Amino acid sequence: MLNLFDTLRVYFSSEKKLQHSLKNLLGFYPGNIELYKQAFRHRSVCKDKKQPNNERLEFLGDAVISAIVGDYLFMRFPLKDEGFLTKMRSRIVSRSRHNQVAKKLGINLFVEINGESGMRNSSVNGDAFEALIGAIYLDKGYETTRKFFVERIISSHLDMEEIEQKETDFKSKIIELAQKEKVSFEFRIKEEIGQGMDKQFLVELIFNNEIKGSGQHYSKKRAEQMAAEEAIERIGNGQ
Amino acid sequence: MLNLFDTLRVYFSSEKKLQHSLKNLLGFYPGNIELYKQAFRHRSVCKDKKQPNNERLEFLGDAVISAIVGDYLFMRFPLKDEGFLTKMRSRIVSRSRHNQVAKKLGINLFVEINGESGMRNSSVNGDAFEALIGAIYLDKGYETTRKFFVERIISSHLDMEEIEQKETDFKSKIIELAQKEKVSFEFRIKEEIGQGMDKQFLVELIFNNEIKGSGQHYSKKRAEQMAAEEAIERIGNGQ
Repeated sequence: MLNLFDTLRVYFSSEKKLQHSLKNLLGFYPGNIELYKQAFRHRSVCKDKKQPNNERLEFLGDAVISAIVGDYLFMRFPLKDEGFLTKMRSRIVSRSRHNQVAKKLGINLFVEINGESGMRNSSVNGDAFEALIGAIYLDKGYETTRKFFVERIISSHLDMEEIEQKETDFKSKIIELAQKEKVSFEFRIKEEIGQGMDKQFLVELIFNNEIKGSGQHYSKKRAEQMAAEEAIERIGNGQ
Repeated sequence: MLNLFDTLRVYFSSEKKLQHSLKNLLGFYPGNIELYKQAFRHRSVCKDKKQPNNERLEFLGDAVISAIVGDYLFMRFPLKDEGFLTKMRSRIVSRSRHNQVAKKLGINLFVEINGESGMRNSSVNGDAFEALIGAIYLDKGYETTRKFFVERIISSHLDMEEIEQKETDFKSKIIELAQKEKVSFEFRIKEEIGQGMDKQFLVELIFNNEIKGSGQHYSKKRAEQMAAEEAIERIGNGQ
């Protein structure tokens, strides 16, 4: 059994390790490390309210990312109209894009998650990435967050020309893929969430008898596209 | 006819006047005044591309407002979950709310607009308000913008308790109002904008034979609610 001294030693050494890993990830040492721990904590591991999960930070990070990406696009494309800027931003600030980026950064190595409940939700890492941005914002302020995002995310991992030319009709791609592989697929409305003006469709894509993607939106067609986009990403990764 | 000297004098005196008016509005002197002029310039007055309108700044300002309001709510409600925060933000960052705020600030006195084409669109002032936030962000940076927004908008013009308890079923209110005033009303789909997953409904509310509001959304019901909200605001103002 560990005595108090050992417990503290283990605690501080794991803390120190986290600090170093975060320095590698972020390019700077974290100030308030509790914020980063919270950013990586999926709700499946929270027993009570004393251990907050990452959902509030995700709310904050998502909005901060939109502002940063908006600023970046505004500056990078001085002659393009707001329609172009809006389209580009929606391609950059998307769930599947955040999942990709999270994977490249190795966010999954930091995420605390509890088996089953987490594994089913494929956007866990993308959500943690958004929460991480919220944590940086609270810890270091907007300007540091902006620099981190532009230098470590946009410049390192996003190809603007590719994004500009990106084909966004993922449903057509699924149809092609199914014909090529001679398998069946089906978009299934799993649930209608909310009522009246809040009603959104939760759509699942069953491809070759497996659920390969899901999407949720006010527009059923848009929810299908989201599900198709996720499925293409997963099929491409051999999942 | 004015000679060059007079022209310059008039130009600089009007410039000076604008600077002072902006100082009153913002609480600080503008740096790059061209940004503010652009923020107030509706596309109806732009003859060519040399005179950019305010739509790009509106794109930027809208995202900056979301981040600032997200930060504010995160801090103000430390124990509320992200569902609550999202709901509150969508009530604060809404077109009708921005129109209201713009009116209180007197943004309409600054807006450059060309007759007809502008008057029909009732969100001109709210759009200019969002563009103004974009201009402040570019001119002074995020932190000054945040302080301006929290001190001059949220603290001065928004009642959080009222917003929290706000009734958001505007359609029911319209039905009530129509019964009380014994007039007819109709939600009319004016246009389906975009196709497939991009399709949005542009809905108009005709109340007592006049177009009183419009809304655009992927969800027809949500577009109706937006139209109803705008109509209630206008009817309340005797318009």
